[in-house]
This record gives sequence, C-alpha cells and structure tokens, in this order.
Amino acid sequence: MYIAASVFINDDELGLHEDYKKWLEGLAPFDASAQRYRHNRTGEDNADAYMKRQVMGREVVVAITKGKLDFGPWEEIFYGEFDGRRAKRVLVKVIGEQRARGTVRSDNDHAPLFDPD
Amino acid sequence: MYIAASVFINDDELGLHEDYKKWLEGLAPFDASAQRYRHNRTGEDNADAYMKRQVMGREVVVAITKGKLDFGPWEEIFYGEFDGRRAKRVLVKVIGEQRARGTVRSDNDHAPLFDPD
Amino acid sequence: MYIAASVFINDDELGLHEDYKKWLEGLAPFDASAQRYRHNRTGEDNADAYMKRQVMGREVVVAITKGKLDFGPWEEIFYGEFDGRRAKRVLVKVIGEQRARGTVRSDNDHAPLFDPD
Repeated sequence: MYIAASVFINDDELGLHEDYKKWLEGLAPFDASAQRYRHNRTGEDNADAYMKRQVMGREVVVAITKGKLDFGPWEEIFYGEFDGRRAKRVLVKVIGEQRARGTVRSDNDHAPLFDPD
Repeated sequence: MYIAASVFINDDELGLHEDYKKWLEGLAPFDASAQRYRHNRTGEDNADAYMKRQVMGREVVVAITKGKLDFGPWEEIFYGEFDGRRAKRVLVKVIGEQRARGTVRSDNDHAPLFDPD
Repeated sequence: MYIAASVFINDDELGLHEDYKKWLEGLAPFDASAQRYRHNRTGEDNADAYMKRQVMGREVVVAITKGKLDFGPWEEIFYGEFDGRRAKRVLVKVIGEQRARGTVRSDNDHAPLFDPD
C-alpha cells in the first residue's frame, strides 16, 4: 500500500524477476539527483520508485471461484518494493458472496516477496 | 473515462507530477505525424496520449473500511488528461455493503487535477 | 488469463493497435537470447511478452449501469496476446447486484481480438 510498492500478478520464476528489475531500471533509472526527477528536490531520492510502481501497478483484482483464487496458468500474486526500505503492508478485501465476505490486513516486517535490492 | 485520460493513485507532490509528465513524454513522445503513430492518419494527433494513459492506468479499485477510502500513506486519487482537451468525467461505483451501495457520476468542466499541459 | 496476455480497454482503431505493437516492441523488445532476459534461460523465448503484458495490464474492472457496460466514449475491451501462441481464455465475473450475479468463462480457439503477430 505504499506508493513505491506494487502488487502484481506474474510467474514465480527468479530469472523473470531479475528481468523485471533490469527492465524497470531501464524505463525509470534510479537517480538521486533533482536533475532527472524534480521530486528529489524534496530531499527524497526515490522518484524512480514511483515510476516503477506505476508500470507494475498498485493493486490486483482476482476472481474467486469455489473458494479459490481463479488464476490462469502460472499466475501468482507478488509484492514489489521499489526503493526497498519499509515493511510491507497489503490490504485484502473479499466481496460479492455473503459467506466469503471478510477483510484481512497484513502488516509485518518480513522481507518483501519481490525486492529489487 | 476518456481513452486519453487516466485515474491513478499517487502522492500529491507537484515535483513528482512534473516528473510523470517528463517521464511519460520520454516513453511515448508527442508526435503529430503519422510516421511514428499510424493512429494519427485518422486526422487526430493524440496517439501518444493513448500510450500514456495505458502506462498510468484507466481505473483504480480502492477498498473502503469503516466508510473511508483505505489508502496507504500518501496515496490519493488523481485524474490525468494526456491530450488536455476535454472536460473530465469520472465514474465512481461503490459495491459490497448494502448500506454503502450507490453510484456517483461526476461530469464537469473544471480543470483536471493533473493536466500535463 | 495467461501471463503473456492482457485484457485492456481502448479504442477500436486499427492504426492505434499497430502503434501499440510498435511501441511495446520499443519498450520491451523481443529477444530470444538469455543475454537480455534471464527468463529465457529456462528454454522459453517470451520474457518480452511478460513485460508487454505488464504495461498493458492483466485485468479490467468495468462498471455496469442499468445492465450495460458503462464505458467512456470509444472505450471497448480488448484481448492482447504478446507471444501469439495459445487459445485465449478470459474470465468474467459480475458482482454487486443480486439479479446480475453470475460467472461466465470463455475458453476457445478463436484468433485473439488483438494479436501482435
């Protein structure tokens, strides 16, 4: 739920995760200076992380069928942290069926599932 | 709701908004000619805006907890208009709880919250 | 629902679809080697397709008003297949109204609506 973090769906293949890191670095390179990113005039140096999060997406909406996440082949949910500096927080909401309605909030200090650092 | 416009979630920091404009211009430069964008053969010159909207996203899905938008820190909803030529229209649907169900449609001529021009 | 495929919303204009193919090829070029994409060490050659799908998005959430998809002008739903090798599968869930609740799954061998090859 942080603006430098992403929840996305993809394949659990380590080479592919390396590819995403490299590819995102190409699209929005880390640059602590305020020449490339005016946001960094605020004293932060993570403007690139906000660009990366925009490419990877903020949230996913997943169908549930017969009580299970209804994915295509290889699909899994990942958490990406693009400046690698904080505990991950993910909010999960279940809607649509009386029996399944609920809210689960996860706040913890475990390492992100997908950490670009 | 226009295909050159985006609803996205990010930080309300003006430098960052400048960064997004510049970054998107790098990823999908404005070019009125039909050499770069075949879409512009139609007589329009805004094919770049459709690319930009695709990066920034069309819609957001936001959880509501205890009657309030359940955001992470710094998250706010923005409207981006990538060819800067029309009134903004945003459709908001609320689902999941009997009490909260409703539909609000906003049609107005106010300046977009985030206007790249 | 495949990780190299996308469901997205845009204009039904053939020149624009050509523009997307070319633009995505620029952002994430096809390259069967494992030099650019480590994922291709697995024996696959479609890492670029996973990047393209990430830009175009996995799913869309569309409001329904009075029984109809509530789109902005020109908006239509497209299916994009970025390595062009499989039957399309799309999962549609309808939520929120008792009368409209249902699930439709489409599995077929028709050509994708938007096929980059």
